[in-house]
Amino acid sequence: SARTALAAHHPANLAAILPTLPLDLRLRALASLPVERQAQVFGYLAPADQLALARALSRKDLGAMFAAMAHDERADLFKRLSEEEREALLPGLAQAEREDIRKLASYPEDRVGAVMTSDYATLSPELSAREAIEQLRREAPNRETIYESYVIDESRTLLGVVSLRDLITAAPEAKVSEIMRREVVKVSAEAPRAEAVRLIREYDLIALPVVNGGEKLVGIVTADDAMDVADLEESRRIQIFGGTSALGGPDIDLMNSPLSRIFTARFFWLALLTVFGLATSHLVAAQSEMLEKVLILSAFIAPIIDMGGNTGSQTATMVIRAMALGQISLRFADFWRVFRRDLPVALALGLGIAALEAVLAFTTKSIGWEVVAVVGLSMLSCTVAGSLFGLVLPFAARAIRQDPATLSAPVITSIMDMLGVLIYFGIAWIFLGHLFVE
Amino acid sequence: SARTALAAHHPANLAAILPTLPLDLRLRALASLPVERQAQVFGYLAPADQLALARALSRKDLGAMFAAMAHDERADLFKRLSEEEREALLPGLAQAEREDIRKLASYPEDRVGAVMTSDYATLSPELSAREAIEQLRREAPNRETIYESYVIDESRTLLGVVSLRDLITAAPEAKVSEIMRREVVKVSAEAPRAEAVRLIREYDLIALPVVNGGEKLVGIVTADDAMDVADLEESRRIQIFGGTSALGGPDIDLMNSPLSRIFTARFFWLALLTVFGLATSHLVAAQSEMLEKVLILSAFIAPIIDMGGNTGSQTATMVIRAMALGQISLRFADFWRVFRRDLPVALALGLGIAALEAVLAFTTKSIGWEVVAVVGLSMLSCTVAGSLFGLVLPFAARAIRQDPATLSAPVITSIMDMLGVLIYFGIAWIFLGHLFVE
Ligand SMILES: [Mg+2]
Ligand SMILES: [Mg+2]
Ligand SMILES: [Mg+2]
Ligand SMILES: [Mg+2]
Ligand SMILES: [Mg+2]
Ligand SMILES: [Mg+2]
Ligand SMILES: [Mg+2]
Ligand SMILES: [Mg+2]
Ligand SMILES: [Mg+2]
Ligand SMILES: [Mg+2]
Ligand SMILES: [Mg+2]
Ligand SMILES: [Mg+2]
Ligand SMILES: [Mg+2]
Repeated sequence: SARTALAAHHPANLAAILPTLPLDLRLRALASLPVERQAQVFGYLAPADQLALARALSRKDLGAMFAAMAHDERADLFKRLSEEEREALLPGLAQAEREDIRKLASYPEDRVGAVMTSDYATLSPELSAREAIEQLRREAPNRETIYESYVIDESRTLLGVVSLRDLITAAPEAKVSEIMRREVVKVSAEAPRAEAVRLIREYDLIALPVVNGGEKLVGIVTADDAMDVADLEESRRIQIFGGTSALGGPDIDLMNSPLSRIFTARFFWLALLTVFGLATSHLVAAQSEMLEKVLILSAFIAPIIDMGGNTGSQTATMVIRAMALGQISLRFADFWRVFRRDLPVALALGLGIAALEAVLAFTTKSIGWEVVAVVGLSMLSCTVAGSLFGLVLPFAARAIRQDPATLSAPVITSIMDMLGVLIYFGIAWIFLGHLFVE
Repeated sequence: SARTALAAHHPANLAAILPTLPLDLRLRALASLPVERQAQVFGYLAPADQLALARALSRKDLGAMFAAMAHDERADLFKRLSEEEREALLPGLAQAEREDIRKLASYPEDRVGAVMTSDYATLSPELSAREAIEQLRREAPNRETIYESYVIDESRTLLGVVSLRDLITAAPEAKVSEIMRREVVKVSAEAPRAEAVRLIREYDLIALPVVNGGEKLVGIVTADDAMDVADLEESRRIQIFGGTSALGGPDIDLMNSPLSRIFTARFFWLALLTVFGLATSHLVAAQSEMLEKVLILSAFIAPIIDMGGNTGSQTATMVIRAMALGQISLRFADFWRVFRRDLPVALALGLGIAALEAVLAFTTKSIGWEVVAVVGLSMLSCTVAGSLFGLVLPFAARAIRQDPATLSAPVITSIMDMLGVLIYFGIAWIFLGHLFVE
């Protein structure tokens, strides 16, 4: 039958096919599955497809689906419903489920609470291993995972954690309290969601228990959801670094964000850079006397100022990465260690690039040795200055308690533009100033 | 005793403390643990600390540790040993372990084979659920995970997969062949390692089975190792985007890579950009006639050419992200869809930035309306051109089968520098060309 044929497929694969069907076929395909299976498929759909389908379902069918869905996924869906849709849905749900949804949906999106789920397995410490396995066997259909169970007392205080592996390898009559690990890796529901990712990665966990302020268990973050969060955090970092996201703002999505949101996030950066750029223009305009005498200087403005921004972005990228990996932190000793590694590289890069630029400039343009010297020395200075600037900036961000990853490459290049112009015309005055001494 | 006190801690925590102790204390602390525990702690050490400790251990102790380590982690350690150290170690190991290490160590670092482990659990299809659980209970200490078991025939062909959850909820006498899922998500050992990450993320797996060309099971990739790979791939993408890593080359690490490697990777990019930059210089130098008459034009070169690179990087970042999320691929329909979304945003940004720049320029400098018009129109054109260029580039990269994430922001800005100079002086000739008609 169609029922068994569809049910043989992985819910993620069904979720990939479903949105390609017309809405009425989509509803019939979904209805042909058992409700637990429907809920699984639903969990794999993209938010927009979930919403479209949820709105097409009868109130009764949607209620049944909500009861069967993973608790974290249904809270996420609930947040996307309109006020009226929520009001229509809630009365059909049991009291405990309404409260569960409201609580999970109440956390800010960037906190652990918004990523956790409440359908975890708990055990009481007095159970034997055999009894605990029997309990998990019964509860399995309603638990996100039964591979890690959390041992709690009557007040839900977290006493320890025990894995199904520990339980099945233990003597059947051994008590859970004897088998459990008491040193539990846990996180607060109010912590940044990236902290849950860090702990799951560091301790290789299947799930991480979440406690409220008073050490009471309130949820778990599963490894699969941590991977999704890591992915979101990565694209946030890349978007900030590329300058497409206003500082700390939510991600923009080329295909789904409203055009006005995309415009605002991008305009914020570009306007900021325009204002920076005007300062650079002023600095150049102030050199009109020099430029009138040695017009060829204007030809090298662009490559010289770019070099500072490029080396600065390179160094900043490496320092931000080393900070993210925990190799360095905000300590003078670390700054000094990085400085001593970076300085010789910056000097070597500066000499190499200056020589390359001087040779290229000299062989391809009929310019005097003084201008070649000015261009070469400026390249050297801008490369070294850019590298040092890119090194200082992430430490400075940490010092004012900002995430160094919120440094944007365009901002680094804009500041280096200004510094580059100062360096370039400063060196030009030293070498060519005699032209103005009459 | 010290033994029980240390054993109570999580191996990851012990691994964090160990490298801070002097070498002799480190060896004594390690020796106080049971060998399985030693092997776990060892697995959490950083590569350099592993190597230092491995070299200080006696040949016999190192052999015992190797036998107890996770198979993937010992293969990684083996790869770091010198030829002599390998020759000294291998005779102390059993024949099967030597072959296992050699096979796992034989895969290129960027392939699934280098990330997989061979200590997975297999079941035969004729077993009952009860027998299967009993077998897993016995084998647990030597298996990376017992939560997913792989059902194979005598030739190791993968027939299906069964979870411990499925086994304990099934009727005890049900056959594994009846319980197992036959639709198995799997990957080839020769596939790029990022493919294993993608599948584990998409299907929310604890472990992903790995097959050789002939569908024989050869290993599994566990979710925790996939997270580590995702992390490595992310920093690779960020480094390429920031221009600190030569195309396709291995990561550079600020704290650990030799300075010569850091120099080479960075010089590659900076030299490339210097050559690009010289072309921009030529274009500006060719406008000496124009610049002599209207010197103020040179003041706006920097902000105008920067704008093209900045908008180009913004758009490229968003397109690359949408491609990574699978929202768009290399099809004309997708290009057109993105183009129609991007064009109005680019036009609005261009108008906004041009207006801002014109107002700023007009109110702060005593320049004529013609120069303000040239600057404003150039800003508009560069913003739109940069945005379109940042849109075309990732599609072009896909068309020539390159990873769009290997596009470097500095390259985008350098190309836009050149285009920006052409646009700027082109528009200047239109508006100011009459100054030269005598
Ligand atoms: Mg439920
Ligand atoms: Mg959530
Ligand atoms: Mg890990
Ligand atoms: Mg690990
Ligand atoms: Mg979940
Ligand atoms: Mg999820
Ligand atoms: Mg620049
Ligand atoms: Mg073993
Ligand atoms: Mg490996
Ligand atoms: Mg997933
Ligand atoms: Mg999921
Ligand atoms: Mg592993
Ligand atoms: Mg530029």
